[in-house]
Amino acid sequence: MGSFRGHALPGTYFFLMGLWWSTKSILKYVSKKQKRSCYPSSKASFQRVELVEGIIIIFMALSGIGGEQFLNGGPSLILYKEGQWNQLTGWHHCTMYFFFGLLGVANILCSTINSLPASLVKLMMSNAFFVEAFIFYNHTHGREMLDIFVHQMLVLVVLLTGLVTFLEFLIRNNVLVELLRTSLVILQGTWFWQVAFVLYPLSGSPKWDLNDHGNRMFLTICFCWHYALTYMIIGVNCVFVIWLVRWRLRRLCPSEVELLKNTEQEQESEEEV
Amino acid sequence: MGSFRGHALPGTYFFLMGLWWSTKSILKYVSKKQKRSCYPSSKASFQRVELVEGIIIIFMALSGIGGEQFLNGGPSLILYKEGQWNQLTGWHHCTMYFFFGLLGVANILCSTINSLPASLVKLMMSNAFFVEAFIFYNHTHGREMLDIFVHQMLVLVVLLTGLVTFLEFLIRNNVLVELLRTSLVILQGTWFWQVAFVLYPLSGSPKWDLNDHGNRMFLTICFCWHYALTYMIIGVNCVFVIWLVRWRLRRLCPSEVELLKNTEQEQESEEEV
Amino acid sequence: MGSFRGHALPGTYFFLMGLWWSTKSILKYVSKKQKRSCYPSSKASFQRVELVEGIIIIFMALSGIGGEQFLNGGPSLILYKEGQWNQLTGWHHCTMYFFFGLLGVANILCSTINSLPASLVKLMMSNAFFVEAFIFYNHTHGREMLDIFVHQMLVLVVLLTGLVTFLEFLIRNNVLVELLRTSLVILQGTWFWQVAFVLYPLSGSPKWDLNDHGNRMFLTICFCWHYALTYMIIGVNCVFVIWLVRWRLRRLCPSEVELLKNTEQEQESEEEV
Amino acid sequence: MGSFRGHALPGTYFFLMGLWWSTKSILKYVSKKQKRSCYPSSKASFQRVELVEGIIIIFMALSGIGGEQFLNGGPSLILYKEGQWNQLTGWHHCTMYFFFGLLGVANILCSTINSLPASLVKLMMSNAFFVEAFIFYNHTHGREMLDIFVHQMLVLVVLLTGLVTFLEFLIRNNVLVELLRTSLVILQGTWFWQVAFVLYPLSGSPKWDLNDHGNRMFLTICFCWHYALTYMIIGVNCVFVIWLVRWRLRRLCPSEVELLKNTEQEQESEEEV
Repeated sequence: MGSFRGHALPGTYFFLMGLWWSTKSILKYVSKKQKRSCYPSSKASFQRVELVEGIIIIFMALSGIGGEQFLNGGPSLILYKEGQWNQLTGWHHCTMYFFFGLLGVANILCSTINSLPASLVKLMMSNAFFVEAFIFYNHTHGREMLDIFVHQMLVLVVLLTGLVTFLEFLIRNNVLVELLRTSLVILQGTWFWQVAFVLYPLSGSPKWDLNDHGNRMFLTICFCWHYALTYMIIGVNCVFVIWLVRWRLRRLCPSEVELLKNTEQEQESEEEV
Repeated sequence: MGSFRGHALPGTYFFLMGLWWSTKSILKYVSKKQKRSCYPSSKASFQRVELVEGIIIIFMALSGIGGEQFLNGGPSLILYKEGQWNQLTGWHHCTMYFFFGLLGVANILCSTINSLPASLVKLMMSNAFFVEAFIFYNHTHGREMLDIFVHQMLVLVVLLTGLVTFLEFLIRNNVLVELLRTSLVILQGTWFWQVAFVLYPLSGSPKWDLNDHGNRMFLTICFCWHYALTYMIIGVNCVFVIWLVRWRLRRLCPSEVELLKNTEQEQESEEEV
Repeated sequence: MGSFRGHALPGTYFFLMGLWWSTKSILKYVSKKQKRSCYPSSKASFQRVELVEGIIIIFMALSGIGGEQFLNGGPSLILYKEGQWNQLTGWHHCTMYFFFGLLGVANILCSTINSLPASLVKLMMSNAFFVEAFIFYNHTHGREMLDIFVHQMLVLVVLLTGLVTFLEFLIRNNVLVELLRTSLVILQGTWFWQVAFVLYPLSGSPKWDLNDHGNRMFLTICFCWHYALTYMIIGVNCVFVIWLVRWRLRRLCPSEVELLKNTEQEQESEEEV
Repeated sequence: MGSFRGHALPGTYFFLMGLWWSTKSILKYVSKKQKRSCYPSSKASFQRVELVEGIIIIFMALSGIGGEQFLNGGPSLILYKEGQWNQLTGWHHCTMYFFFGLLGVANILCSTINSLPASLVKLMMSNAFFVEAFIFYNHTHGREMLDIFVHQMLVLVVLLTGLVTFLEFLIRNNVLVELLRTSLVILQGTWFWQVAFVLYPLSGSPKWDLNDHGNRMFLTICFCWHYALTYMIIGVNCVFVIWLVRWRLRRLCPSEVELLKNTEQEQESEEEV
């Protein structure tokens, strides 16, 4: 992983998953508010979606493990070589991917076996994030100041994601907590890209001075700006999903939309009282 | 912000907002206890108040950003100049103001769009405080002992405010949690003033020795006294609001007041059983 | 407070309050389980008890402040003398006592004004403990290793007490959480005594070597044994209170006791089903 | 305890208890889902099980204390000898065992006295884990880097176990939280074995270099793999218990099984709607 691509890959994965999870949460919230809609069997379709999600997550995890082990002169599944440990940072990343693979397995199990509690997925997800935070915390021995700092920021966001996911496990079906988690996942994704640009600048661009404290202070606010960007992404996504749902509803059953609008207005006037 | 006024401005803002939020919380609590009152459409009026609050918060955030960027030789929107970062502490403060601006935007959105969950404002508020705590935590590199200490106190109170606001986001409509948050916001406001007096003593008054541990021990208890002062402010505010509500009620519909007193006494006797 | 008596006094206060609070919690729990008992107007009597409790706490706080300020060559209300702060550790302790005094005030207010939320007392109590933890955390600059360690233990137990009290503020009427808090308060009381014996050994007994790590390891387990002792105290108290309640009940209305036993057995047999 | 066996013994105890607790949790969950089963008086039998559990835990604690005190040249109940503390690490472990003994006592009390709140066991359990974490945190003064690290990992897992148990005390009857706790207990058990192999390698195997940072990075991922192993153990246990319950049910009352299957399918089809 000690390369630009090694950081860009998980960044892309986390960004895409965060984007997808935010879409799913908003979709669930909107379709719940419109119970009288024409959607048939929404629960079954959500279950099928979970299954596909699980498969995709497992694929991501496997591709991540494969890339770590065999590309860029990785450890190639050899743990101990010539009297010392063989490229442990690579193994660290593999372990991280492995726990996200377990999340995918939990996704598949929960969508196929009905007697399993549905919140198992959330528990496995929070565990995967906690393990990731734990690994990155013990990851940066003997590196330079800025390198340690950007990884600490990563630990911070991952730990927070784990905590929020655990909260989600405890109190289910709160759309804002779900969106908070997805915003942190997206932040993690974009931050991975930032780390890639800082530690492995593309050819042509100047190198960052890893011991300059000014750079650290800049990256502090940069981290906040990433988070503000995350807000914007989720806001746009929100508007887009609501527009999409209304558009599909209008095409499928135009009469419903009228009903919908009326009920909304009724609700509003009720709430005003 | 490296000036007396740079600390006094946010101090005043936080103090005023804390005072206002405490007034609002008490008002809500009192008007809830007196459901049978003559107030017309209290919910709609609270929504209008939220709108105005959002606009004021945005104005505060913009004035703060403007002051940081253009007054006292600020960075003037230039981030990178002559091969190094340009006045990053100013940018830090701007980022902080920006997130409070987002809180104002959330306020406006929630008061105009009814389908948005009402607790979104609380989530944005807790995020704004967390971001502020994060920024101040990474803010004091290479400063003197007392300077670091007063900023750590700031981080402590801001972090606690964020946590309490997050708690408020989870359990709604608990007046004591709301007052706890407002007390912490007022504490932050008065502490900003304290920091201003410590780091930038007014002309005439003696300078503080920033490396004397005695000063640090004094500021420790000073912080507690500020908090005790906060209690007193909220207590006085509480008495004032209740007196105001009764006075308005008496003027508007005198018969109600009698009813009110009776029901109160009834409740008391019921509770005694 | 830099004396044996200065530590023994708060130790005694906390021990007595812990003992009293545990008695009150058990009494409440038992009298709730026996709703059909002969006790008249238990709520009103509990309110009167709160009032007395508040007065006693205020008395304790005032005596503590008085002792700190005027005994053993205390600061005598002079904060700044001859160009430097005057005995700030004494002022630290006074601030701590002051916040417990506020707790007493809250006790009195809540027991006299019915419209105040009852959990205000719990909030003020948790705040008092948090302030105490904060003060002791910033209290031990430049002292010796063992001195710092025993105060850190104090900070730990006070912080935990504050957290548990805050939890109690959120979820009311859980007898085990209340007993957990009282156990921590008793632990604080006995630990204050331990600190007094370690730092200011009575004349005749040998002095502790404040830099010996063995002593620190001993005090670590000593702290745990104190906690085990706390369990025992609460257990004995529990047995005693239950015995007392039954005995009073038997004297006042013997027929009730029979009824009580029957209902208990009925409940048991119901639960077994 | 400074020996292979001294670490293997608690490891075995925690592993067995974790395995047993996970079995119990799954059994409770399954038997709750199948209320209409032929099991007679399941509550009474669970209570009897608690009693036996308490006795076994007390036996474990006593054997642990005995081993610490009298085997391998332990302190033999002498705390202070020849002017200094006598083998305090041994006393540390005894204190740890003692609090688990108290847990056993609470188990017995709660299963025999009906008026005690059932969650007392959980509170004592979380306290026992917190005390253990506290002791191990103050346990490793002056040791080598890797020795400290493996004990820090122990503190981490024990602290998390305490927190999760406390959560379980607050929200009862959540099977996933219970399984999370048991997974952490099993992890603690296997990690004790790992520590034994690292610090006291069996004769024949090479010694670990306690100051090599590579070893630390390996043990970081090793810890995660232990956790993944824990998942697998609980998963297999889960499958085994469900199979066992169905098998016993089939033997005892075959007609029920058919009923059961039907209701399950009905539930599934209901949920799909």
